[in-house]
Amino acid sequence: MNGKFIVIEGLEGAGKSTAIEAVLATLTAHNIDNLVRTREPGGTVLAEKMRALVKEEHEGETLQDMTELLLMYAARVQLVENVIKPALAQGAWVVGDRHDLSSQAYQGGGRQISTETMDSLKRTTLGDFKPDFTLYLDIDPRVGLERARGRGELDRIEKMDISFFERTRARYHVLAAQDDSIVTINAEQSIEQVAADIRRALENWLKE
Amino acid sequence: MNGKFIVIEGLEGAGKSTAIEAVLATLTAHNIDNLVRTREPGGTVLAEKMRALVKEEHEGETLQDMTELLLMYAARVQLVENVIKPALAQGAWVVGDRHDLSSQAYQGGGRQISTETMDSLKRTTLGDFKPDFTLYLDIDPRVGLERARGRGELDRIEKMDISFFERTRARYHVLAAQDDSIVTINAEQSIEQVAADIRRALENWLKE
Repeated sequence: MNGKFIVIEGLEGAGKSTAIEAVLATLTAHNIDNLVRTREPGGTVLAEKMRALVKEEHEGETLQDMTELLLMYAARVQLVENVIKPALAQGAWVVGDRHDLSSQAYQGGGRQISTETMDSLKRTTLGDFKPDFTLYLDIDPRVGLERARGRGELDRIEKMDISFFERTRARYHVLAAQDDSIVTINAEQSIEQVAADIRRALENWLKE
Repeated sequence: MNGKFIVIEGLEGAGKSTAIEAVLATLTAHNIDNLVRTREPGGTVLAEKMRALVKEEHEGETLQDMTELLLMYAARVQLVENVIKPALAQGAWVVGDRHDLSSQAYQGGGRQISTETMDSLKRTTLGDFKPDFTLYLDIDPRVGLERARGRGELDRIEKMDISFFERTRARYHVLAAQDDSIVTINAEQSIEQVAADIRRALENWLKE
């Protein structure tokens, strides 16, 4: 039997790493222990090289928004075809730190790349492939970025101004409202409450 | 006044480097001396990093055809937006070693990626931008690869089998027949005759 693909989404500082631990613990408690963790962009040797290109600062050369978008999809195709699909086919459950919804929110919402372009690229590269279940950790970008700053240096994308993250969050809201497989978690609560909400949401979905 | 964008296209070993010298010499002889040379994939610091990803052998990880295509366009967007368009706007003439026609031929023809995908990606990333004039150096891939081998090590793409290059050449033929701005040069002639044909074709176009 094929495994399932579960994705954790959200802005910087929303608590994705903690959420992933909660997801893994919940799955293990339900005797699902053939688990694969991924992150995007990245997750393969080649995709990590593409991740570096979009994350690093590039002195003297502007990384075009369209280039950033193409690199995100190039990395995603590598991960999906070389890691995620084979794992699912072998019955593993894949838990992803970000997936396509991040591109929709950050490049579509934040960078304001047209919906036509976003839809066209997604269809061309991924076809019908999508996560079975997504947990979106919702947080005010001011709160999230404050947390992220506490962890150290911000990367090229994390240094964007607050309006970029507000547009990104707004797009997450729109897309979460349109898709029943995306559950929104209030990530401004205590770590314990967030973990409890994640566990409950995941268990409800597992029962379906 | 805006400059013009001239592109040299063709299979491995078709003689693109020699052709570019002939083009530059002809332009200079016509007092066009604000010249910029580019190559694809590559031509900027970031685009050269993407070039390395598509050219190198990757032990243990398959570079998906779709990833290769996305990287080609990511590199192209960097070059077009950061180098070619600004140069043309300043009145420079740009002479390119390959451009979009290579993707159409190699990834569309050689890799057999659908025309729908090729058209969609081209429109999304380049819009209406296209070269003013293209010289396509036509050569039997057996002859061209023999020449290329004489130059040393072949890269990941150059190591494809002969049928790949035959499909690539066939696509070049189809696309050249559809576009009046593409002139086909018989690249199996002597270097002198090829250079003479290039000079004549370019001068005919300059007179238009």
